[in-house]
Amino acid sequence: MIHVGVIGVGYWGPNIIRNFHANRRSQIDVCCDFRDDRLNFIKTTYPFLHTTKDYKEVINDPKIDLVAICTPVFSHYELAKAVLEAGKHVLIEKPMTSNTKQAEHLIEIAAKKGLHIFVDHTFVYTGAVRKIKDLINSGELGELYYFDSVRVNLGLLQHDVNVLWDLAPHDISIMNHLLDKQPQAIVATGADHFGNGFEDVAYLTVYFPDNLIAHIHTNWLSPVKIRHTLIAGSKKMVVWDDNKPSEKVLVYDKGVDVVHSDDQVYDMLVQYRTGDMYCPKIDSTEALASEVNQIIDCLEENRNGFADGQAGLRVVEILEAAQKSIKNMGKEISI
Amino acid sequence: MIHVGVIGVGYWGPNIIRNFHANRRSQIDVCCDFRDDRLNFIKTTYPFLHTTKDYKEVINDPKIDLVAICTPVFSHYELAKAVLEAGKHVLIEKPMTSNTKQAEHLIEIAAKKGLHIFVDHTFVYTGAVRKIKDLINSGELGELYYFDSVRVNLGLLQHDVNVLWDLAPHDISIMNHLLDKQPQAIVATGADHFGNGFEDVAYLTVYFPDNLIAHIHTNWLSPVKIRHTLIAGSKKMVVWDDNKPSEKVLVYDKGVDVVHSDDQVYDMLVQYRTGDMYCPKIDSTEALASEVNQIIDCLEENRNGFADGQAGLRVVEILEAAQKSIKNMGKEISI
Amino acid sequence: MIHVGVIGVGYWGPNIIRNFHANRRSQIDVCCDFRDDRLNFIKTTYPFLHTTKDYKEVINDPKIDLVAICTPVFSHYELAKAVLEAGKHVLIEKPMTSNTKQAEHLIEIAAKKGLHIFVDHTFVYTGAVRKIKDLINSGELGELYYFDSVRVNLGLLQHDVNVLWDLAPHDISIMNHLLDKQPQAIVATGADHFGNGFEDVAYLTVYFPDNLIAHIHTNWLSPVKIRHTLIAGSKKMVVWDDNKPSEKVLVYDKGVDVVHSDDQVYDMLVQYRTGDMYCPKIDSTEALASEVNQIIDCLEENRNGFADGQAGLRVVEILEAAQKSIKNMGKEISI
Amino acid sequence: MIHVGVIGVGYWGPNIIRNFHANRRSQIDVCCDFRDDRLNFIKTTYPFLHTTKDYKEVINDPKIDLVAICTPVFSHYELAKAVLEAGKHVLIEKPMTSNTKQAEHLIEIAAKKGLHIFVDHTFVYTGAVRKIKDLINSGELGELYYFDSVRVNLGLLQHDVNVLWDLAPHDISIMNHLLDKQPQAIVATGADHFGNGFEDVAYLTVYFPDNLIAHIHTNWLSPVKIRHTLIAGSKKMVVWDDNKPSEKVLVYDKGVDVVHSDDQVYDMLVQYRTGDMYCPKIDSTEALASEVNQIIDCLEENRNGFADGQAGLRVVEILEAAQKSIKNMGKEISI
Repeated sequence: MIHVGVIGVGYWGPNIIRNFHANRRSQIDVCCDFRDDRLNFIKTTYPFLHTTKDYKEVINDPKIDLVAICTPVFSHYELAKAVLEAGKHVLIEKPMTSNTKQAEHLIEIAAKKGLHIFVDHTFVYTGAVRKIKDLINSGELGELYYFDSVRVNLGLLQHDVNVLWDLAPHDISIMNHLLDKQPQAIVATGADHFGNGFEDVAYLTVYFPDNLIAHIHTNWLSPVKIRHTLIAGSKKMVVWDDNKPSEKVLVYDKGVDVVHSDDQVYDMLVQYRTGDMYCPKIDSTEALASEVNQIIDCLEENRNGFADGQAGLRVVEILEAAQKSIKNMGKEISI
Repeated sequence: MIHVGVIGVGYWGPNIIRNFHANRRSQIDVCCDFRDDRLNFIKTTYPFLHTTKDYKEVINDPKIDLVAICTPVFSHYELAKAVLEAGKHVLIEKPMTSNTKQAEHLIEIAAKKGLHIFVDHTFVYTGAVRKIKDLINSGELGELYYFDSVRVNLGLLQHDVNVLWDLAPHDISIMNHLLDKQPQAIVATGADHFGNGFEDVAYLTVYFPDNLIAHIHTNWLSPVKIRHTLIAGSKKMVVWDDNKPSEKVLVYDKGVDVVHSDDQVYDMLVQYRTGDMYCPKIDSTEALASEVNQIIDCLEENRNGFADGQAGLRVVEILEAAQKSIKNMGKEISI
Repeated sequence: MIHVGVIGVGYWGPNIIRNFHANRRSQIDVCCDFRDDRLNFIKTTYPFLHTTKDYKEVINDPKIDLVAICTPVFSHYELAKAVLEAGKHVLIEKPMTSNTKQAEHLIEIAAKKGLHIFVDHTFVYTGAVRKIKDLINSGELGELYYFDSVRVNLGLLQHDVNVLWDLAPHDISIMNHLLDKQPQAIVATGADHFGNGFEDVAYLTVYFPDNLIAHIHTNWLSPVKIRHTLIAGSKKMVVWDDNKPSEKVLVYDKGVDVVHSDDQVYDMLVQYRTGDMYCPKIDSTEALASEVNQIIDCLEENRNGFADGQAGLRVVEILEAAQKSIKNMGKEISI
Repeated sequence: MIHVGVIGVGYWGPNIIRNFHANRRSQIDVCCDFRDDRLNFIKTTYPFLHTTKDYKEVINDPKIDLVAICTPVFSHYELAKAVLEAGKHVLIEKPMTSNTKQAEHLIEIAAKKGLHIFVDHTFVYTGAVRKIKDLINSGELGELYYFDSVRVNLGLLQHDVNVLWDLAPHDISIMNHLLDKQPQAIVATGADHFGNGFEDVAYLTVYFPDNLIAHIHTNWLSPVKIRHTLIAGSKKMVVWDDNKPSEKVLVYDKGVDVVHSDDQVYDMLVQYRTGDMYCPKIDSTEALASEVNQIIDCLEENRNGFADGQAGLRVVEILEAAQKSIKNMGKEISI
């Protein structure tokens, strides 16, 4: 039985509690927040849970194996450091930290202590992403051409981060998980319409080797919610519309075949394929339940999951570069 | 009665012929192409039309008032120059020319000769764009925040231009028409997956004064056709989905009101508005019919239309800058 | 504080528990089921709840004010009768009973005892239905022409009722609530594809006075889930798509104006109106929470709610007639 | 070369002309209408066509092989009879005639004279219907359960027929073509909201042998245009949304497998299949072009097409029965 403590029970913490509570191999023992109303809310649903306003009670509780940190980004590093130094595994909300230096330091401490870091990149555990990963790994899509993701809605303007730090961790973690390649450089543009220095609209291009390109559009000022991803390969193409209640992933047997003639490089023979489209059946297990299950597996088998410290670091790296680029009108930043 | 000649009857030329033929104030007299099969196709539908393989026959025909040039981009400049020098008005397919220098020269000749240049920015004549233009001009949207346009499909790979030159003239001409502001700089990124130097996926950010930002996504390798535009202002927001058979333009009474407190610039009071949405009734006249009508009005009244040489030049200016930026990994190019 | 007991914690019972638990003016004290696994499931989430396999424990518990019956239809009558005879108010799952005689008897007992019957017509408490009710009551739709509802999906074939008894209680209760008129007759057709006597596809026409017509299509063998309702009046028309994540209700300023000339009744002057469409903002409170709140109000103020025994009876009446019609190849049955 | 004459060039006639004109094996020689403006309209597009206001000129023209009748329904019989008696083949708009007696008489004359009747059931020539027909014929759908078709929009109220006669010929001809079975009985309901005796909303159930059921919903008072067909078989299910610009036909590997246990007929073991969905590629040739091509084939090979006089009669038979049923509150009418 894995014993779990949770620090931060605002928006996401209750979902973490619900899923560890529901898993038969784990037990939530304690949760912490400095807001009385949030603790009361938890008490109503889980009257048997110990609640506290002092995070040290969680960290120092000897029966706790894993501490989940569900607080604002700026506090991730200090809290995770304290958890690791107290000899416990840690699950950190995305993005992992406010900068790469902090992420690297946490990885270092965990390695030294023989502990595991899990970063809560929930989306990579969805049935949709797992299916697309299968399509890519099996070679069904062919050589990848691009990854294009749109994540926009009328969002909660944040006071401490821009829209990329708020929304793009989803897209970047999905992109890294699916493409499984090291990006070379990024270019980001955006605009801040409320004069507080935090962009509410942002566009991010990520250059990978072999002409693979990725693009992420995040926006807090969209009247409609869009969660739309296009992934094209030389053989097939995928449209993933996460807003649809069903049939989220469609696979198109469409593409372009180019035959270069021998004498003339410019004289391409282009052939279009437009065959059938199909919608694969997708596992509808709640992503967080799958994630919690994998975390427990990892702890029992002493190994890392999909979304370990390195995965967390790679996301922060791109966010940090994007921030630099966006402030310099799209300057190319190497990764 | 305006007498019209057409050079180039490939994909778009027949639409030009059909619309000038249908208008009671104009008459198509002659059309030209170097391909026999295209001329035969025209002959079948319009047996009374004179056809020729020599464009000079069109240009030198004394009864012709206006020549429409519907040929590939690289030939626009030479043909339009010849038309203007022969003392005739000219309607040029978009994009107007292959570079700004050519566009400027055509404008100069037309001015000297007292002739009119029309650029076929058909989309600005659609009911949708005219309705959105009304919403912006009436102040209903408030101060504009951004313009975001996606135009993707499994496209005809071109041999002589990249996807931006092929598709973005639509978006750029719509953007310029709606925003009616001078852009300051652009950043473009993209990738070429077939090794011929012409990007098939491209992203373009356009910076305008006052934090107004625009973004255009064009793509020839998308399995699905998307024509989706978001325009947000401080008061209302517009979603225009040109793929829908009806209800293309939706107006959302949504937004964010930010109140800065006196002492603390960081302490923003953010309020969200999410009121009703409505779908205005839109004129469904074919855009090209409206355009042809305006061209004839202009010729009768000796004035320019929405889409004159200057409008054509402004589109080419952005395309030229985008090409430079895209080849330099998103380098910012001032306009 | 209203004390509530629940009999039956299969699919719907847990939702009833969750909502009475969440309301500050009510408290769930006890729940009953004959299946151990269901009781254990409830115990996991609500460890403080008393559970029992004997429904008489619930009925005879002196502190209980209201008993919710969430069991299969065939048991509603016997259980509700026992509850009422024990002097408690009752909330009954839809449909209220297996036939009109039973419903009438329960109404009679409740009246005699001064108790209230609530029928769980949850849908009439949704934001969508309440908004449409407002549109009708305010006269915005004009004189009503028709109500057309489609409720289809790949459904759980039931062993004891046909698809109408399973799905149509939603549509009929919504129809009765919105139209607020006494139907005159019905015609129902359908087919049973598995030879067990229970139709899996069924169509129901309901005739109202003044040429108002309603139609309900229910289907357990549809590959896609459709929840689509059209309501047209002489002034405006409503489309309600309950499957959409947002913008569920659209109001169209469309219609037909017919002017009869004096001499010739056949010579109608038909004029079409196709104006704007709008999407009213809709309250997104969970319907069951609103319903629970109204039930508590009613108990505190000793009055009936929207969905009282009479409303329950009216639904059963139509279902009973439909069953008779469907077995007689669409024979018209008067109500 | 097949020589064609057209009587009636209102809404549909010009499409007939365009398609026979475009086919290399046929030639339009003459068209007739009693309205000058319609003849002038045709003259503008086809200046070489002979036009006349006297239909006898068409019928008696010795070079004409086939006469297309594109006039209102009430005139079909008299005109078609005259055409056949003049020894020419005839193509008749749908529905073929105003009643079954007329249709039977035309079939009789044609048989006697050795001539062919074609009825313009255009929809059975669409790529969508041809693909669904293949799916049914190949056994991919299994044993058919139901056919459900919705065809609604804000329609042109007709002065001489109800909404069923106006819209349902499409659905009935598609249904007959796809199911290829003799219906046993029908039940129809509907309402007339403008007091002229012609229903503007109508529902039609068609009973086939083996529990196969069909339902057609037609409506002139719908604010939205819906063209949606569900077809379910024991193996797979089809959704055809003709309103979509692409991906109109989706095939679902969904269904219900029922295993009856030996002892107990009521104890069904129900298993649900919910596998992949796919979207077959569909021929996008204009339906009327395929139809015209088949008609010419038939004339050259002296045989009937898909949509011959018998097919036309079967549609009229159902319409006639539906009219009787609808006026008798859903009375079952045997076919």
